[in-house]
Amino acid sequence: MIAGIVVLFITVPQVIAYAFLAGLPPEAGLYAALLALVCYAAFGSSRTLAVGPTAIIAMMTLEVASTFAAPGSADYIVVTIKLGFVTGIVLLVLRLVNFGNVISFLSHAVVTGFITAAAILIIINQLPTAVGLPSSGDTSLFGVAGYLLGNQVNIIALAITTGAFLLLVFCRLQLEGILMSKGFSEVVASSISRSAPMYVVVIGILVTSTMGLNDTQNLPVVGTIPAQLPSITLVSISLAELQAMLPSALLIAMVIFMESISIGSAMASKNRQKILPNQELVGLSLSNIGASLVGGFPVAGSFSRTLVNFTSGARTQVASLITALLLLVTLIGFAPVFYYLPKAVLSAIIIISALQLIDISGIRKSFAFSSSDAVTFSFTFLAVLTLGVESGVIMGIVISFVLLIRSSSRPHVAVVGRVGESEHFRNIMRHEVKTDPSLLAVRIDESLYFVNARYIETFLFNEVADKPKVKNVLMICTATNFIDTSGLEMLEALCENLEEVGVTLHLAEVKGPVMDRLKETEFYARMKGEVFFTTDIAFKELANI
Amino acid sequence: MIAGIVVLFITVPQVIAYAFLAGLPPEAGLYAALLALVCYAAFGSSRTLAVGPTAIIAMMTLEVASTFAAPGSADYIVVTIKLGFVTGIVLLVLRLVNFGNVISFLSHAVVTGFITAAAILIIINQLPTAVGLPSSGDTSLFGVAGYLLGNQVNIIALAITTGAFLLLVFCRLQLEGILMSKGFSEVVASSISRSAPMYVVVIGILVTSTMGLNDTQNLPVVGTIPAQLPSITLVSISLAELQAMLPSALLIAMVIFMESISIGSAMASKNRQKILPNQELVGLSLSNIGASLVGGFPVAGSFSRTLVNFTSGARTQVASLITALLLLVTLIGFAPVFYYLPKAVLSAIIIISALQLIDISGIRKSFAFSSSDAVTFSFTFLAVLTLGVESGVIMGIVISFVLLIRSSSRPHVAVVGRVGESEHFRNIMRHEVKTDPSLLAVRIDESLYFVNARYIETFLFNEVADKPKVKNVLMICTATNFIDTSGLEMLEALCENLEEVGVTLHLAEVKGPVMDRLKETEFYARMKGEVFFTTDIAFKELANI
Repeated sequence: MIAGIVVLFITVPQVIAYAFLAGLPPEAGLYAALLALVCYAAFGSSRTLAVGPTAIIAMMTLEVASTFAAPGSADYIVVTIKLGFVTGIVLLVLRLVNFGNVISFLSHAVVTGFITAAAILIIINQLPTAVGLPSSGDTSLFGVAGYLLGNQVNIIALAITTGAFLLLVFCRLQLEGILMSKGFSEVVASSISRSAPMYVVVIGILVTSTMGLNDTQNLPVVGTIPAQLPSITLVSISLAELQAMLPSALLIAMVIFMESISIGSAMASKNRQKILPNQELVGLSLSNIGASLVGGFPVAGSFSRTLVNFTSGARTQVASLITALLLLVTLIGFAPVFYYLPKAVLSAIIIISALQLIDISGIRKSFAFSSSDAVTFSFTFLAVLTLGVESGVIMGIVISFVLLIRSSSRPHVAVVGRVGESEHFRNIMRHEVKTDPSLLAVRIDESLYFVNARYIETFLFNEVADKPKVKNVLMICTATNFIDTSGLEMLEALCENLEEVGVTLHLAEVKGPVMDRLKETEFYARMKGEVFFTTDIAFKELANI
Repeated sequence: MIAGIVVLFITVPQVIAYAFLAGLPPEAGLYAALLALVCYAAFGSSRTLAVGPTAIIAMMTLEVASTFAAPGSADYIVVTIKLGFVTGIVLLVLRLVNFGNVISFLSHAVVTGFITAAAILIIINQLPTAVGLPSSGDTSLFGVAGYLLGNQVNIIALAITTGAFLLLVFCRLQLEGILMSKGFSEVVASSISRSAPMYVVVIGILVTSTMGLNDTQNLPVVGTIPAQLPSITLVSISLAELQAMLPSALLIAMVIFMESISIGSAMASKNRQKILPNQELVGLSLSNIGASLVGGFPVAGSFSRTLVNFTSGARTQVASLITALLLLVTLIGFAPVFYYLPKAVLSAIIIISALQLIDISGIRKSFAFSSSDAVTFSFTFLAVLTLGVESGVIMGIVISFVLLIRSSSRPHVAVVGRVGESEHFRNIMRHEVKTDPSLLAVRIDESLYFVNARYIETFLFNEVADKPKVKNVLMICTATNFIDTSGLEMLEALCENLEEVGVTLHLAEVKGPVMDRLKETEFYARMKGEVFFTTDIAFKELANI
């Protein structure tokens, strides 16, 4: 119950703000959140996931929908409704093809690069509103900078944004500690400080309504929100529209799934619960379809609201249903109150949310850990920033797979020797080991298949050419997880060519599943060398060490 | 010298036939072969590779060029010249980006599927000519079948095709054995039987010229070949044409490289010679540019002619230069002789060549060995057959990478135990091993990265959930060749979540390069478990077995 109420305080300001970010009227956010919460509670698998409009998905909706209609127009609203519906259908199709249990396409680097760049795009998008100007309809850094320089800043709006921003920062960074030092419990202190968006909304409304400021007094405010229940809006989608929307809807669906499942499983693991990926797809699909039926736009699991839900004590989906009920009450009873809400406050809320999406320490960590992840991150980041979310993410996915395959085409190959008198064998370059000039023992740290077969063949052939004393070559297959036909052909050719120069090829430590298949080949029947169970046996037999 | 002469006997009929297959006049094949041989001898790295028109490349040329102009038209010839030139430039660019040493994109299954389907397309394409009808301009099986049924078969042409076909089959399968049983040496017997295409050409010319048959007497013949030296033809290519041809030229260049390098290295390894992939790209590039300058079309290393060259004793590029010289002599001195050559004979030669490209036993072997290769083969085969070579091969490449990544997303994971008193550890499902209920030792046969991180995490978590006695989890990393940031995040989450339920995560046998990077992470600093040098030490310490 408490969780349901606390989540409401953060949901109302956020969903109005994200509707605004997506170029939609505030009620679109409220309706979408309402239906998403109810549908997810009925069909989702996480007990605490708070579904509804999120910053990233709102940004993607803006990007996609504005290619079909001008933001602000009546057509635009219809396009976002259609997009939400198609996204819901795509999620259901993904469930049918068992996508939840299939490949994860999005590497950590692609996701981080995409989210960081999207956060920057969101902030750039909000700068005009933050200084009281109408949205520029331009998302490029230079376009917005020129627009800001070319127009008169609205001082009142800028003051409100700054005030709201500082209050939000204070609540996030300081308030919880201060309250706890005053003797409040952690749950209470956290709930109070996390409800900050509601405070800035209430203060914003009080200030503007007291001072009588509104659009005609030169301060953009939210304006009239119809105090009525959402009504079912049925829109018909032509086949041509469906085709045009499908690629974008697929990408949005994948991001929705990825966002929601990572938040959902983080929460579930804290409680020894399970997330069923396919069930999540159904829950998210129906949330999106539900939201679109009442005039909403695409929805996903919200990180901040889910966290508040969990830390405020939500343990079942009842909390979400209470939030939904209160949202309905807000909509019917308090809609006129939001008339005076300055858009500058919404910008401050959006900018704070976007800043929280940028994880500098995580980026630094991934740069230090993996150079190919650093490349993928930078590439995705720049691509999203310059080409937009859709093309940027796709290019990021492509580059991550290209790098993956590239690294596997040049596998790490170690010539090994025996460590002391032990049964262990290590790289001769890294450890003090015993070797025999007549035996070349090589551990190939990769499966043998088409992208690396020729590389491995050339490596072994050159090693043998450089070491005339070699009589036996031992391939240690501990890291060979599979062999494809190209790999098998390579082994056949290698074996034959080595035999012509009087060198015998042996294998060791071939894994069960690989051996099962190898046993049935002509190569295995013909090869003169042995397949040793362990490297130890092979060294004893071939080199007597 | 002998090799040069024998190769000539097979080159002349083949290149005239392949020019005909590509929809070009016979001299285009002769000119292309002449320049290709000379340029390759000067710049290539293989000593015995015979470069010139080949069946597969001729087929691809037909497919690509006929989208730009109608085969048989003057424009069509210009298009094939441009295509050869652009292909040559692409090969040079591939050299500049060091492509020879980079990834090999074409798996064995894709190549076999593509060649098998292309061979069938070639045969279908030749059926009308084989029965004396003009080419139908249709490559689909049903289209050609309908065309054949709807037209009157030319009995004389059909008789000539059948006779030539049977003679070729006889020479290939029987003649060498018969000659050797009569006391001929293997080299002589093989040279005589492999020159079969020349015999059918000579017999064909004798029969038709004696009987006075030609186009006006209802038997399609080759007609006039200008008895002149090739002249340099310079064509200008517009940027738009270049862009339109580039994707096809890239694919043709890749196939040329793949065909040539596999034949070249097969021959080189028999003689302890090396093939330098990048040097090959230069040789093939200049062969194509040279061929296009004299009005030829794209060229590659020919499997059959290279084999004849090698088995007839060619050991340096002098053999190819002799073939080229003799080709020049043939062109100037004997061009009029080919006037009476029936096109039906060319069809028989092409059909025989195409049949030799179909390697049933290789296909059967790869089907038995790898189910994913079987899928890739079938997919590529059907795609090439129905959509053409270009789209088919691209779809084959895509499916081979998708399957590769899919298999790596569900890695083989083995729970292991100690084999007797040894230091070896094997799968508990496959071997009689000793285990301890408090220790879950798992060998993951794959690197830890974004496509499989979640799968591995779920697997370990479910294992621990199913085995309440487990206190220690040991991940054996013998097959973990790298860890990316997604994998590292998974390890962090796994470690933390296991610790919350009182289970400690340990690692063993981490490879040098992986350990180097792991040591610098927060995860390594924080983890409570140990990183054991060997599984043996880990079992002794954690389970006392």
